[in-house]
Amino acid sequence: MFISILTKTIGQTRVLRSSTINRHFSSNLSDYGNVEGIKLSEVADNVLNIQINRPEKRNAFTSTIIAGFRSIFDKLNTDKHFRTAIISNTGDFFTAGIDLNYFSSLYPTGVEDTARKAMRLLWLISNMQETMKSVISCQKPIISVVNGGCIGFGVDLISCTDIRFCSESTFFQVKEVELGLAADMGSLQMLPRIVSNQSFLREVVFTGSKFSSKKGLEHGLVSKVLPDSETAFQSALDVAKLIASRSPIAVQGSKVNLDYARDHSVADGLKFNIVWNIAMLQGEDVMKSAMAIVSKSPEPPKFDDL
Amino acid sequence: MFISILTKTIGQTRVLRSSTINRHFSSNLSDYGNVEGIKLSEVADNVLNIQINRPEKRNAFTSTIIAGFRSIFDKLNTDKHFRTAIISNTGDFFTAGIDLNYFSSLYPTGVEDTARKAMRLLWLISNMQETMKSVISCQKPIISVVNGGCIGFGVDLISCTDIRFCSESTFFQVKEVELGLAADMGSLQMLPRIVSNQSFLREVVFTGSKFSSKKGLEHGLVSKVLPDSETAFQSALDVAKLIASRSPIAVQGSKVNLDYARDHSVADGLKFNIVWNIAMLQGEDVMKSAMAIVSKSPEPPKFDDL
Amino acid sequence: MFISILTKTIGQTRVLRSSTINRHFSSNLSDYGNVEGIKLSEVADNVLNIQINRPEKRNAFTSTIIAGFRSIFDKLNTDKHFRTAIISNTGDFFTAGIDLNYFSSLYPTGVEDTARKAMRLLWLISNMQETMKSVISCQKPIISVVNGGCIGFGVDLISCTDIRFCSESTFFQVKEVELGLAADMGSLQMLPRIVSNQSFLREVVFTGSKFSSKKGLEHGLVSKVLPDSETAFQSALDVAKLIASRSPIAVQGSKVNLDYARDHSVADGLKFNIVWNIAMLQGEDVMKSAMAIVSKSPEPPKFDDL
Amino acid sequence: MFISILTKTIGQTRVLRSSTINRHFSSNLSDYGNVEGIKLSEVADNVLNIQINRPEKRNAFTSTIIAGFRSIFDKLNTDKHFRTAIISNTGDFFTAGIDLNYFSSLYPTGVEDTARKAMRLLWLISNMQETMKSVISCQKPIISVVNGGCIGFGVDLISCTDIRFCSESTFFQVKEVELGLAADMGSLQMLPRIVSNQSFLREVVFTGSKFSSKKGLEHGLVSKVLPDSETAFQSALDVAKLIASRSPIAVQGSKVNLDYARDHSVADGLKFNIVWNIAMLQGEDVMKSAMAIVSKSPEPPKFDDL
Amino acid sequence: MFISILTKTIGQTRVLRSSTINRHFSSNLSDYGNVEGIKLSEVADNVLNIQINRPEKRNAFTSTIIAGFRSIFDKLNTDKHFRTAIISNTGDFFTAGIDLNYFSSLYPTGVEDTARKAMRLLWLISNMQETMKSVISCQKPIISVVNGGCIGFGVDLISCTDIRFCSESTFFQVKEVELGLAADMGSLQMLPRIVSNQSFLREVVFTGSKFSSKKGLEHGLVSKVLPDSETAFQSALDVAKLIASRSPIAVQGSKVNLDYARDHSVADGLKFNIVWNIAMLQGEDVMKSAMAIVSKSPEPPKFDDL
Amino acid sequence: MFISILTKTIGQTRVLRSSTINRHFSSNLSDYGNVEGIKLSEVADNVLNIQINRPEKRNAFTSTIIAGFRSIFDKLNTDKHFRTAIISNTGDFFTAGIDLNYFSSLYPTGVEDTARKAMRLLWLISNMQETMKSVISCQKPIISVVNGGCIGFGVDLISCTDIRFCSESTFFQVKEVELGLAADMGSLQMLPRIVSNQSFLREVVFTGSKFSSKKGLEHGLVSKVLPDSETAFQSALDVAKLIASRSPIAVQGSKVNLDYARDHSVADGLKFNIVWNIAMLQGEDVMKSAMAIVSKSPEPPKFDDL
Repeated sequence: MFISILTKTIGQTRVLRSSTINRHFSSNLSDYGNVEGIKLSEVADNVLNIQINRPEKRNAFTSTIIAGFRSIFDKLNTDKHFRTAIISNTGDFFTAGIDLNYFSSLYPTGVEDTARKAMRLLWLISNMQETMKSVISCQKPIISVVNGGCIGFGVDLISCTDIRFCSESTFFQVKEVELGLAADMGSLQMLPRIVSNQSFLREVVFTGSKFSSKKGLEHGLVSKVLPDSETAFQSALDVAKLIASRSPIAVQGSKVNLDYARDHSVADGLKFNIVWNIAMLQGEDVMKSAMAIVSKSPEPPKFDDL
Repeated sequence: MFISILTKTIGQTRVLRSSTINRHFSSNLSDYGNVEGIKLSEVADNVLNIQINRPEKRNAFTSTIIAGFRSIFDKLNTDKHFRTAIISNTGDFFTAGIDLNYFSSLYPTGVEDTARKAMRLLWLISNMQETMKSVISCQKPIISVVNGGCIGFGVDLISCTDIRFCSESTFFQVKEVELGLAADMGSLQMLPRIVSNQSFLREVVFTGSKFSSKKGLEHGLVSKVLPDSETAFQSALDVAKLIASRSPIAVQGSKVNLDYARDHSVADGLKFNIVWNIAMLQGEDVMKSAMAIVSKSPEPPKFDDL
Repeated sequence: MFISILTKTIGQTRVLRSSTINRHFSSNLSDYGNVEGIKLSEVADNVLNIQINRPEKRNAFTSTIIAGFRSIFDKLNTDKHFRTAIISNTGDFFTAGIDLNYFSSLYPTGVEDTARKAMRLLWLISNMQETMKSVISCQKPIISVVNGGCIGFGVDLISCTDIRFCSESTFFQVKEVELGLAADMGSLQMLPRIVSNQSFLREVVFTGSKFSSKKGLEHGLVSKVLPDSETAFQSALDVAKLIASRSPIAVQGSKVNLDYARDHSVADGLKFNIVWNIAMLQGEDVMKSAMAIVSKSPEPPKFDDL
Repeated sequence: MFISILTKTIGQTRVLRSSTINRHFSSNLSDYGNVEGIKLSEVADNVLNIQINRPEKRNAFTSTIIAGFRSIFDKLNTDKHFRTAIISNTGDFFTAGIDLNYFSSLYPTGVEDTARKAMRLLWLISNMQETMKSVISCQKPIISVVNGGCIGFGVDLISCTDIRFCSESTFFQVKEVELGLAADMGSLQMLPRIVSNQSFLREVVFTGSKFSSKKGLEHGLVSKVLPDSETAFQSALDVAKLIASRSPIAVQGSKVNLDYARDHSVADGLKFNIVWNIAMLQGEDVMKSAMAIVSKSPEPPKFDDL
Repeated sequence: MFISILTKTIGQTRVLRSSTINRHFSSNLSDYGNVEGIKLSEVADNVLNIQINRPEKRNAFTSTIIAGFRSIFDKLNTDKHFRTAIISNTGDFFTAGIDLNYFSSLYPTGVEDTARKAMRLLWLISNMQETMKSVISCQKPIISVVNGGCIGFGVDLISCTDIRFCSESTFFQVKEVELGLAADMGSLQMLPRIVSNQSFLREVVFTGSKFSSKKGLEHGLVSKVLPDSETAFQSALDVAKLIASRSPIAVQGSKVNLDYARDHSVADGLKFNIVWNIAMLQGEDVMKSAMAIVSKSPEPPKFDDL
Repeated sequence: MFISILTKTIGQTRVLRSSTINRHFSSNLSDYGNVEGIKLSEVADNVLNIQINRPEKRNAFTSTIIAGFRSIFDKLNTDKHFRTAIISNTGDFFTAGIDLNYFSSLYPTGVEDTARKAMRLLWLISNMQETMKSVISCQKPIISVVNGGCIGFGVDLISCTDIRFCSESTFFQVKEVELGLAADMGSLQMLPRIVSNQSFLREVVFTGSKFSSKKGLEHGLVSKVLPDSETAFQSALDVAKLIASRSPIAVQGSKVNLDYARDHSVADGLKFNIVWNIAMLQGEDVMKSAMAIVSKSPEPPKFDDL
């Protein structure tokens, strides 16, 4: 594929406008820009915090926020510095879902034919799903900390992340059926792979009934319920820091392989795992880790950024 | 495919014996006929109750009942009126499984050759599995309410439904190993996708040991255990009514997509979901729902039958 | 599953209405009934000939004929006597496809909502596809002999069969694009697995252009082109007779495994093949065949019906 | 999903910055911009011609051209006007593949650790593959017309298109093995699904040997070989015009379903096809087509843009 | 395939060196040989106990033990006598994982080129994974009884078994991330299919944090926690004896079908189940079981070894 | 996984009995041993020739030869020296298939129960299929040169190889149906992926009819037909030498990815391809190749053994 070694050797490099290809290697907060309704900060070394920040509208998602999430996760995926991210919310509501006002004008108008309208909807939903795919396929572990209501699109979003904590007062609602439609932003695909009680899941999907943080824990949607927003965030931050202290090669390799295994047979997953590791086991993190263990160093090893 | 619009336009319709193709659009109880051992009733608007009704034999399934279930679920799948169904039992035993007496004469006789006997068994089991497939692929949500023993084929049956409640005195048994055979009516395929503890599941499959309603809840086979038969049924009925009040387009679309997601990768599931919705989002239920929300109507919207 | 051995042993068989389950074991021509537009005959021992027989309308398919094909192939699948079938046509046109007049009244009317109309179309197309599935999944080898035009649904049909011969004057047309729609009766799924030149295939699908028997042979749609209708049929009959003389266990096992392999990985196909053979290798046909070979018998062995 | 109907009804639309979501509905040539090394033109109504245009370097691909292709095919995918595209070349060489000089500087430098370098390569190759995915997943039929050498990346590219013609003097080379690497831009995935002789394919992949247009036709890589560049292009243009005259709903639906069928089982393909058609059969093109046929109109029907 | 019947019939058997093919039909303990670090015993009729036995090194796995496990499970798979196995540990530590000292010399040395080193790693990891595949694909149910720490490779191992019990003092650790690498011995593939809370799972994988037996039970890694090593083993033994008393045809058929269902769609699983049963339902265990039930025999039926 | 780097660094390597794990790195002819009925030679640098050598019995496969093939291909897979292999035959018959006399005694005897006999057949066929899997999964390209009859198992064997040439007088026969059974050694899985005319394929499978080298070429089973045995072998040898002169990293990477693509979707294949290449592109062969091209060296580059 890339024969750059060549050029190094025989020295005939030309100026290359590689930015068109090589555009995604972000490595600091300012690369992410400002998006209205999203607040970004580095809450600990290598830990990005993404806050949904439109509390006056119960954090309802605008098309700008949705597009913003896509851009953030695309960048984060190949970011050299950040190793994990926490999604949380300002205010006391995680999100009311998609803001109807914002989205109504997206609906295809000016076309009457059912088939052509269908084609526009195809492009539109595909485009929105790209945001979910950016979250799902981001190589860095993503932690959701939910506080307050988590409704509709909010459930889609957290179900595409890796680790989910919430505060006691949190409630959840798969609201789409109440809106007269079948969810198409990930809930129907991800929840059954996350929630441990399928009978419970189908009840809340078909009825659109709300359920509490307690039920969320009991049936596996979250793994921890903390007393309040602060303790929930702190708990997530502790996990995030621990993750950030591990080898990013090891952590991200684990995520890539867990995700691959989710969609393939055990045999296929094992094989992919081998091919991944034949490169990664040649890295320095394996040796650093082993030396730390053997030398019984009181300090954990430090791993370079990507 | 169908160019009927044409005929409307240029008016040359002939008499069509379309019943041979277009035969399944049932829409009232009498279309379902009477099957010995099954009791049908409309327990609430748009809610069908299917009772296993052979209490003198602990509701053991005859071949007539099995064929009856297939016919009922095939009809229900394209029924314009019923929106959900509850499977329950008369008497105090959900089912003892398949009635050995009834089924013994099905076993292929009059053929000695092992290969030809194998071919007959292939046809026979395939035919019986069609009943399970009718249940699994029915677009309407199916709720099982189990009261009393639920054995063998009974476990196959409820594991093919969407939502499972039971009374406290209920017990379950994957009995096939005790019968010297590997279950082939769905348990081995569906239970691992339902039950949350795979170690528990394999124990009860390999030993054929009974387990209680409490274990059933703990390990995810059911989502609610109620004190007795009446409260269990009432609880299911409440859920069924709520489901029946929702848009049937939204509810069934959700089921179709959950089922698709079960057997495909996340990416495939998302794509199928889009293609489903490009037709369904053009329907009136979406608007009705949105208007009800925006207008803060105290009444939930009413949705037409299919 | 079936514990009939028990009954034989301890003698308590009751009368069983098994016909509801065990209904498909046809074994002679009269079991197939008469369908207007289809002519059935036993053209050689164990060889069924299915002729499309509506020459006055260029053998256009009515809904009756489509439903008839489904019924015939469902029966044939578990028929004890017939071992292979030949689909051919009376007259000098294989088929003009689906008869628009017949099908126009199938199109859902009396429903305005786009979503509900979509649901009706779903049921309708699903129902029609059942005919294609009956052909595809029939365990007996099916040979198509095409003479004259083979258009639209005709291409769907032959692409679901195993072996395809035609006469020199035959031409083919994947007509659906000309009708303003994407084919949904099997062509788009089966042709790419049959035709050897994908560039050619996509051209004829996207343009709807006719192509000759010569192109059909060159690009793998058919395997033999004979001078005329009679020689084409005779050639198919020779193959059919040879197939019918082979062990039906071996022939049908080969088809089942080829079909399984088409939709699964090589490893999966090999494993399924083993499980199939652990029953079938215990049959008498293996021994009969081996003895015929070892004894150098001038007569080929005779194999029992299923 | 989108509740725009609501807004239409109750009138509270706000200004929406929808461009962030709804950005891809191009509909004329100027939307595509200018890319150095690519020449775009509308060679017939609704037919886009994409020419590789760097003849002084034997049309070797720069990173700019690769990024340009991605952008063009992303736009074309949701373009309302163009219905098909032809990829061809200026000069007498289709392409010499990727330009080594341009790409050498893309190779990750400044990182020594094998694992981290592997991660950079992962991002880089993924990014380049996005161009191939844009071509593969573009809903519009793409025709390649090859004239002169088609090497390395050129073979990847045409194998991702639908229809392939070439001139007599054309030759092909899967060059990657000669470069010391396994192709990773699509050849190894697409060629085995296109080429009819797998033994031939593996020979040319493992040896990197050139092969002629004649071999290309014989083994199914192309479907037509024309005397020279002009006749080849004209032949492609005729096909393109015919495609452009068909219903874009029908043509693109056929492509979507052929592509889905390629990667799924027959049963899955059939089911997806149904769900696609329940929207599309409600469109006006079906009726227009049927009326044209019934009325025996000498003029083919005209279909609206998307 | 095998035409042995022939030889029986016409009597021309020659001496066959079949051992090269037919080599795995072990049936007593001595066939398993002695492996340093593994202790084998028949703890009840037909029940094999495999103890990890290197307590002085916290049962860390040497390459000898890993190879030993492969050999044992390959034999057990086709053993005619043993019907189930229990993996447990001597000492008070289940296992500390792979012994670093032993494995360090396996790492490819004497080769500098990254690609060639990658190839060596491919062979090496593949070879080690063969042990996991031997465990996963063994037809006999395997029970793990964990007592004390279960770390790294230990978690891989038990996640490849069917039933998992542990003592109260047990703790678990997915340690690989701490070692700077992504686990490649099965944890990432098997745990998500076993553990009921995916958020919990991803936390412990990404952080490498230890978790208690209580968490293991709560989140579905084990199905029973017993007070101590002895009661845990006894509990496993009771289950093992019950399994061993069942028809080995039924038990192993159930495992084969559960495993198949794990990696295939429901429809595929049901079909495979049929083909498996058309041989197995012709066996004597079905009749024996049925007779025992009908005759209400106080004694459970005895089933022959395989 | 392997922390050997550690040991190198801190020097505490112990003696390791690694042979149990690390046993397959053969690198010269004598490692392969002698197998009766197989002749091995190095016909050119890095090119292994495997001759079926039992001409007095028309090269019929004994169980020894089958086991020998498995052993040879397992070794070859991880051989550091040989880069490709040619399978050919001594005498004038490629192979008559499996020798019935040798195999008759493999058939399970001494067991009457149908289910238990089925289990023995399962083990036996699985064991024999391991040979086919060794051929299929060998990373080195395998060329078959067929001269004379290629019957039954011979067709299975060559269909598992990469490149197939034959002499003019060669004929082929998928003989299994004539033996009363469905082939289970790979033909039914591999042939449909190789042969370009599926109608032809199904005819020869269902009838067991012989077909000529000409038909084999026409329908894609072979890619070259040469006048006689010598020219066919020479032609294969030329290809083998060319392959052996290429980078073994590139050649084997191409084979691994072609094989992966065969059994996965295009998207999955592309992703696997990336992960493979992120290790392999860091190897020296890429640079050597690029330098040879840039420097226009008249000598092709020399690549190290693995």
